[in-house]
Amino acid sequence: MPCPIARSLEHVGEWWSILILRDALLGLTRFDQFQKSLGIAPNMLARRLNALVAGGLLERRRYSERPPRDEYVPTARALDFRPILIALLAWGNKHFTPEGPSVLLVNTRTGATVDPVLVDSATGRSITGPEYALAPGPAAGERTQRRLASAREAWRSGTPRAARPRRKPSVGRRGGTNATK
Amino acid sequence: MPCPIARSLEHVGEWWSILILRDALLGLTRFDQFQKSLGIAPNMLARRLNALVAGGLLERRRYSERPPRDEYVPTARALDFRPILIALLAWGNKHFTPEGPSVLLVNTRTGATVDPVLVDSATGRSITGPEYALAPGPAAGERTQRRLASAREAWRSGTPRAARPRRKPSVGRRGGTNATK
Repeated sequence: MPCPIARSLEHVGEWWSILILRDALLGLTRFDQFQKSLGIAPNMLARRLNALVAGGLLERRRYSERPPRDEYVPTARALDFRPILIALLAWGNKHFTPEGPSVLLVNTRTGATVDPVLVDSATGRSITGPEYALAPGPAAGERTQRRLASAREAWRSGTPRAARPRRKPSVGRRGGTNATK
Repeated sequence: MPCPIARSLEHVGEWWSILILRDALLGLTRFDQFQKSLGIAPNMLARRLNALVAGGLLERRRYSERPPRDEYVPTARALDFRPILIALLAWGNKHFTPEGPSVLLVNTRTGATVDPVLVDSATGRSITGPEYALAPGPAAGERTQRRLASAREAWRSGTPRAARPRRKPSVGRRGGTNATK
């Protein structure tokens, strides 16, 4: 798949991979630490760690020869994943923590809670603004170009479309149908 | 799990869910459109769509009574997921598209390619700067507080730690060991 989102998900498109990365970026390095933190089966953890090493996200380093033991240290590629983790944190805090947030991003100089927002580095404006859209890059094939051409308005006009008034179901006509396609 | 990242992943911690959300935010609404775009098995697609509806990310709307047909429209919660998708896009473009990008975020007013960066909305500074750290929120339990206390330096000092010089493997002593724990 040429889509860069799909390419990213080839490396982190699995719940455990992202939580391992989270823990690695929070300072855990050893197999037993990850296992204790995540409550994950050892064979699954070994598989995920191997995939993250193969994908260039973690570096395996021998820290003991007898017995042979490795630690796992985030690479620059993993550090570049931090904005995605923080964006997931902010989204989770906004939508899925009815009891209030248990983890916050803070500015340690001021103590203020941080509201993280994804902006255009050139203008400082939020990338969800109407002037931003997805467009084909130099490596785009025909299919990508077609899809993005038809998607542009949907992406930009997301908010009004989703806010469209909900139609009332026509009572008495829906029973017994459960088709989803 | 109290971690807001894990909470988010309960809803999108699966490759297909994120790609369905991507397509929904790009304007696809119908079962057959998702299936054609993703090449996903119908039963898997039905399951993922149901989970996204149950999680409040898509709204199911009947668009035809005979035959009964539903469409799937992103909710405000799904629109809030756009920064995560764009962050995944930027990470994928930087690290996993050796042939060059096929999808870019652009400013449609200027035509410029956008470099999206996650910043503190109060200061405009990148959240990967050294003054930013994770801290326990009001709902944090003891375990979360302990973990974040020990994680703070690791998170903030990510870059130097990862850049630590690589030790040379001591040749001749590693053969035959493949322990990963």
